[in-house]
Amino acid sequence: MKELDYFFYPKSIAVIGASGKKDSIGKAIFENLHGNLRKGKHSAKIFPVNPNHKIILGKKAYASVKDIPSGIDLAVIIVPAKVVPAVMRECVEKEVKAVIIISAGFSEIGEKKLTAELSSIIEKNPNTKVIGPNCFGIFVTDNCLDTTFAEKRKMNYPRSGNVAFMSQSGAMGVAVLDWMSTQQFGLSKFISYGNAMDVDEADLLEYLSGDSKTKVISVYLEGVKEGRKFMKIAKSTSKRKPIVVLKGGVTEETHAATASHTGSLAGSAQVYEALFRQTGIVQANDMLELFVLSKILENAPLTRGKKVLIITNGGGYGIAAADQVIRKGLELANISKENSKKLRKAFPSTVTIGNPLDLVGDADDRRYQIAIESAIKDENVDMIMVLVLFNTPSIDRNIVKKIISLRKKCRKPMLVLSIGSRYTNERKTELEKGGVVTFNYPSGAAIALKGLYDYSRFRKYAP
Amino acid sequence: MKELDYFFYPKSIAVIGASGKKDSIGKAIFENLHGNLRKGKHSAKIFPVNPNHKIILGKKAYASVKDIPSGIDLAVIIVPAKVVPAVMRECVEKEVKAVIIISAGFSEIGEKKLTAELSSIIEKNPNTKVIGPNCFGIFVTDNCLDTTFAEKRKMNYPRSGNVAFMSQSGAMGVAVLDWMSTQQFGLSKFISYGNAMDVDEADLLEYLSGDSKTKVISVYLEGVKEGRKFMKIAKSTSKRKPIVVLKGGVTEETHAATASHTGSLAGSAQVYEALFRQTGIVQANDMLELFVLSKILENAPLTRGKKVLIITNGGGYGIAAADQVIRKGLELANISKENSKKLRKAFPSTVTIGNPLDLVGDADDRRYQIAIESAIKDENVDMIMVLVLFNTPSIDRNIVKKIISLRKKCRKPMLVLSIGSRYTNERKTELEKGGVVTFNYPSGAAIALKGLYDYSRFRKYAP
Repeated sequence: MKELDYFFYPKSIAVIGASGKKDSIGKAIFENLHGNLRKGKHSAKIFPVNPNHKIILGKKAYASVKDIPSGIDLAVIIVPAKVVPAVMRECVEKEVKAVIIISAGFSEIGEKKLTAELSSIIEKNPNTKVIGPNCFGIFVTDNCLDTTFAEKRKMNYPRSGNVAFMSQSGAMGVAVLDWMSTQQFGLSKFISYGNAMDVDEADLLEYLSGDSKTKVISVYLEGVKEGRKFMKIAKSTSKRKPIVVLKGGVTEETHAATASHTGSLAGSAQVYEALFRQTGIVQANDMLELFVLSKILENAPLTRGKKVLIITNGGGYGIAAADQVIRKGLELANISKENSKKLRKAFPSTVTIGNPLDLVGDADDRRYQIAIESAIKDENVDMIMVLVLFNTPSIDRNIVKKIISLRKKCRKPMLVLSIGSRYTNERKTELEKGGVVTFNYPSGAAIALKGLYDYSRFRKYAP
Repeated sequence: MKELDYFFYPKSIAVIGASGKKDSIGKAIFENLHGNLRKGKHSAKIFPVNPNHKIILGKKAYASVKDIPSGIDLAVIIVPAKVVPAVMRECVEKEVKAVIIISAGFSEIGEKKLTAELSSIIEKNPNTKVIGPNCFGIFVTDNCLDTTFAEKRKMNYPRSGNVAFMSQSGAMGVAVLDWMSTQQFGLSKFISYGNAMDVDEADLLEYLSGDSKTKVISVYLEGVKEGRKFMKIAKSTSKRKPIVVLKGGVTEETHAATASHTGSLAGSAQVYEALFRQTGIVQANDMLELFVLSKILENAPLTRGKKVLIITNGGGYGIAAADQVIRKGLELANISKENSKKLRKAFPSTVTIGNPLDLVGDADDRRYQIAIESAIKDENVDMIMVLVLFNTPSIDRNIVKKIISLRKKCRKPMLVLSIGSRYTNERKTELEKGGVVTFNYPSGAAIALKGLYDYSRFRKYAP
């Protein structure tokens, strides 16, 4: 077992500050952990720790972590900040392997004494690894280990999948967790790491780099603790799997705010951009971009080049997509002469053989099949954007199956763009379930493909 | 009645090419019009015209529009292109006021002879106004007049509201119509105008400028027919109400595609950008921007300046928003000294009095109320972005009512940003119903406020 494994796959957990009090964080966390144990989702033993109660929610409670008869892999601390150093000392004495400190009230509010005290304990005891303080904890989809305290009735959890998400900001993390549940991509591990007093973003990157459940690492980052260490680990991680980063505090005006938020130094936007470029990190400029980039990088193979073919049954939609392809720095593919001739023969004269390849409003699934098959074979085409407006009378549900089967044969990145309401969304969900990644807006799709292209280049040329 | 009123509020309609044939466009359009008449949604008389049938879907059919005993305000033509000129001549003889030609097969496929013939008839008979050919028709929400032919089971229609949408591209138009139904803003009139052989984008702008149901005009445009005319009308319209334009074919590479799509000349991106700036048009760079700009311009008052205050209960979310405010060219407001002092007294020490004004994770509706009330009064604040993460335990449903009531008192633009799944979306729907405009992503909200600011400046300084 690797050091950080104890955070994600513990066999025994102490909840220090567990409580039976209504609406308390201590109750929420204990119930999350214990509830999932009861449901058989994980098998870790759970021990409530609270000196003021003998029994908590029907379980025997211990006055101190030291009183627990067996060894402890993970302790979750939810006590007031001023008690944290004492509790942490007990964890060290108990030789707890991993500690998550949820409690806030340290450097993020300028509290120096407690911060120094806690920091000194952690430094002197490197065998007990710490995530936090001032964090939201972790959520692991493959064993349903959940140390977070969001109100379950107010949120949904994403399905199990291959995107890990780590966030310095706790609230941002929860909102993203909740939002991810509405999207067609799955989570492997969620980590809110707060002030990063011990385990920092670089350590977590390194761990996720070796995590077989994780294909893409998605990060909301306000600052980096140790530039050199981060750079080295990011670079070696990027050679194995993509990292997508949304940097908070990229403008001069927002530096100060990040400093007060998690107590980290934001650094200038230029410095970070250079750092990201050199380490193969794909930079997202907004939350939306973080999501579309994670989605494509989880799903699509690497691309050989940046030439995109747009296939559409809506002329205007195709042009809007072509505009975005160019704007984001990609190129429009020129269909090979040989394929152009074949397509000209196969299609009625109303179809424009070009890019966008406009199959026009009466296109059916057969026309799409011919166009996509031709694009798959065409040496001039690196990536395929399939635009489908499902509202037209000539498109029926067969097209979904055909696109899914073509996508399976296709070794190039291929995505579907479509926009509409209920009927269209049902078709898109079917596509996503069949492994086809879909988007609403041309800009999002183009950003996704550009990120994929940049990452593919890094992989090709990285020393 | 104004000339173009006959398109939108006709008392009698001939459907030329009406049909009882399953899956035909002639059947779809006739049923749409007749169905809404039967349901009492409009009171226009409908006459099917088709020389091959005596009865269509239970109604007496006429061999020619000329055989209809009463006068005709609007004719909808859905016959093959080669028959269109003859049918159009009959409409002229019948003195039909307005004609919508749905049929395609003219300049957009390079068909010169039929195009010239139809064009010549139209030119010689200015009393019969024509929309189309190669268009999708119109949809009016206040009387449910619907000449479109989308398959109803495959789409939803937006609710009645104050945004008019006009699109050169038909398929783009339908998809947007369908998509709008999923959004919390309403439509006044939808117009797909196709090749614009007679009534063009400028004529429609002028009409919508005087339309009391329309507060914002939203346009997907590939090219402008007469630059000077468009410029004059756009400028005078912008002085009354905002126009938002998504220009298709803005790159060198996509010019050619727009030319083949609706046969219009795209012109260079720079020329259009200058044209839009001079006429007060708010330019959208993508479909997403078209929507967010339409939404804010329908909802918010003009702004005095570009200083934005961000109020949040999630630090990271606030910083992401601040980054976008700066990136889009707006400014972060500095809370006035007097207000800062008051807020410092009112809030616990964990709250950061700055911008973002971070009310931190345990903020409740009372804390939000104090912050928003202070922002409404603060002379240094021009616009207010309220970020609410609804997943936190201390936020309950009361906050919705409070924000709605504060929004009513507020004469500055104020919007809500929030991201999540079911629970959050329910709260956002309640806010929207109460007149508060909401967004998911910081980038969309910042683009919306920047567009509002640009338009407000145009209104202030336009001669």
